Amino acid sequence: MSQLWSPAVRELTPYVPGEQPRERVIKLNTNENPYPPAPSVEAVLREYPADHLRLYPDPESRALRQALAREYGVEPEQVFVGNGSDEVLALAFQAFFCHGEPLEMPAITYSFYPVYCRLYGIERRTLPLDDQWRVDLSAFSANSAGVIFANPNAPTAHGHSRDAIAALLERITDRVVLVDEAYVDFGGESVVPLVSSHPNLLVTGTFSKSRSLAGMRLGYAIGTRELIEGLERVKDSFNSYPIDSLASAIGIAALEDREHFDACRGKVITTRERTVKRLKELGFETLPSQANFVLVEHPDFDAAQLFVGLRERGILVRHFNTDALRNFLRISIGTDDEMDSLIEVLEALCS
Amino acid sequence: MSQLWSPAVRELTPYVPGEQPRERVIKLNTNENPYPPAPSVEAVLREYPADHLRLYPDPESRALRQALAREYGVEPEQVFVGNGSDEVLALAFQAFFCHGEPLEMPAITYSFYPVYCRLYGIERRTLPLDDQWRVDLSAFSANSAGVIFANPNAPTAHGHSRDAIAALLERITDRVVLVDEAYVDFGGESVVPLVSSHPNLLVTGTFSKSRSLAGMRLGYAIGTRELIEGLERVKDSFNSYPIDSLASAIGIAALEDREHFDACRGKVITTRERTVKRLKELGFETLPSQANFVLVEHPDFDAAQLFVGLRERGILVRHFNTDALRNFLRISIGTDDEMDSLIEVLEALCS
Repeated sequence: MSQLWSPAVRELTPYVPGEQPRERVIKLNTNENPYPPAPSVEAVLREYPADHLRLYPDPESRALRQALAREYGVEPEQVFVGNGSDEVLALAFQAFFCHGEPLEMPAITYSFYPVYCRLYGIERRTLPLDDQWRVDLSAFSANSAGVIFANPNAPTAHGHSRDAIAALLERITDRVVLVDEAYVDFGGESVVPLVSSHPNLLVTGTFSKSRSLAGMRLGYAIGTRELIEGLERVKDSFNSYPIDSLASAIGIAALEDREHFDACRGKVITTRERTVKRLKELGFETLPSQANFVLVEHPDFDAAQLFVGLRERGILVRHFNTDALRNFLRISIGTDDEMDSLIEVLEALCS
Repeated sequence: MSQLWSPAVRELTPYVPGEQPRERVIKLNTNENPYPPAPSVEAVLREYPADHLRLYPDPESRALRQALAREYGVEPEQVFVGNGSDEVLALAFQAFFCHGEPLEMPAITYSFYPVYCRLYGIERRTLPLDDQWRVDLSAFSANSAGVIFANPNAPTAHGHSRDAIAALLERITDRVVLVDEAYVDFGGESVVPLVSSHPNLLVTGTFSKSRSLAGMRLGYAIGTRELIEGLERVKDSFNSYPIDSLASAIGIAALEDREHFDACRGKVITTRERTVKRLKELGFETLPSQANFVLVEHPDFDAAQLFVGLRERGILVRHFNTDALRNFLRISIGTDDEMDSLIEVLEALCS
């Protein structure tokens, strides 16, 4: 601890992302897409004029916001873009959740949310999941600094229907309800169509999962112009140009190839269902998944030991060392071949 | 103003970057480099495997930090990287300057510094420049939350010697002194060699100017391991992966081509001196510049009118509408041809 640091910095407990290995492994630990980005992304790389990089990008990222607006049927002024949805989320915490009251979130959800609370000095009120490990929408109260949850939730992979979230939005109207849709394209139902009727709804999304662009750091938020303006005020006080020129061009290219997008997410969903079936045959219990990962536990085998056993055989999955999740593994959905290797190793470990 | 926004967000006054025009103009308003990035940058674009983009980048950006460490003769653990030096600066304000005392800075300097102060609730104490428009190093006191200034300063273009800053560091030892070296490669003297002997010195830099990569958003800080760890704590509570995979590869390529770097900054310096001479012949008064821009005023012509006149003829320069700078123009150094066009238009406007 350094006396040179701001006092609050001494209290921070940073987020710990999944490991990024340097050797060749089967990497099923950070929910990456096993398929490459759209072929048009490669075309951007091959054709982009290097000389353009000497110029600043558009600080408002208009072209990328227009492409997202077309994709989601909203106006460009209803779209905010950031350096990964993590940055979008961080800026949203600062823009909307600093009201001096606790922020409400599920007890089990994306583990970066409590980190943002500490960064911005926001108290949080955590609400238990229901008896089927679903986000308990009825537990959120109108008396808070706001509400945040992932839908589908992480790492439980359950997603609520649009109607269920619409009911929540009828009840909570004076604070922002942030629905993080990082995983929605793998079978969930997006609430973006509710934005026009619910001015306090903010929806975030990412290019990292269904668009196969985790390496490019592109995320976005969709809401009313008023909410987007709030985000822009914070962003323009923090970093004028968060989206570099190449990231913008690559994001637009990825959005324009709907065929590739649908093919890849379709394959992930098919492989997920096939994997779940085989995991069940091995005695694993899994929650129904609408995401590109599954959360599983085995009644007879310790999750931490399975994690180590898989790792020793070159397969990385995610194990969260928390009371609630200690007995679970979160396994990202790879290719059929990768999942076959996983099942083969698990067969050996669970016999 | 929205009731949904956090109260403090209603008080923010965002930074206003220089205009990014959509039409073809001679762009001398945001201190971009007129020369393309190193040829190796183009090679990265042509050869980078698009499939890698489906994977998250290294959250610690080790390869890029190693390349910077080699360039500056420090350890990789003494290097922090961010999404442009603006992000690095913002994180540094949060990491080091929130001590409840005022932060000291020159009255005229990079106009983003006061914006960060408002974002993080930091009071500031502004110190006038000396009678030659230089940052008055003797005015900084040990009794503050820290000290920040740009060297060379913006938009005045004057830079202090390393010895002069070393003397300041002998006097102020218990708070961070942040020296922003965005423009140092155009004739200034870097204080990075002082980092080893002054644990409270943090030096920031950027790829946007001398490396011709404003479009890629790459900045860095160099200091002791202790200061870099402070920055990492904030960064890891904000955004795990600020540097995308392509930006990292492109930054490394740019660092490795020293010949191109030296050739381009040499040309900018030569063109600057030639431009200053011709501006003086037109009756302009200019401060000596160690940057890739000049700050000029004309005793007989109003700067705002010159700005408009240049703009109407397709030449963008920067005019700051503040009391201290109202009579000045900040002109970025372009190619010889671009500066010839500038001089030609100014000849017509000032006759």
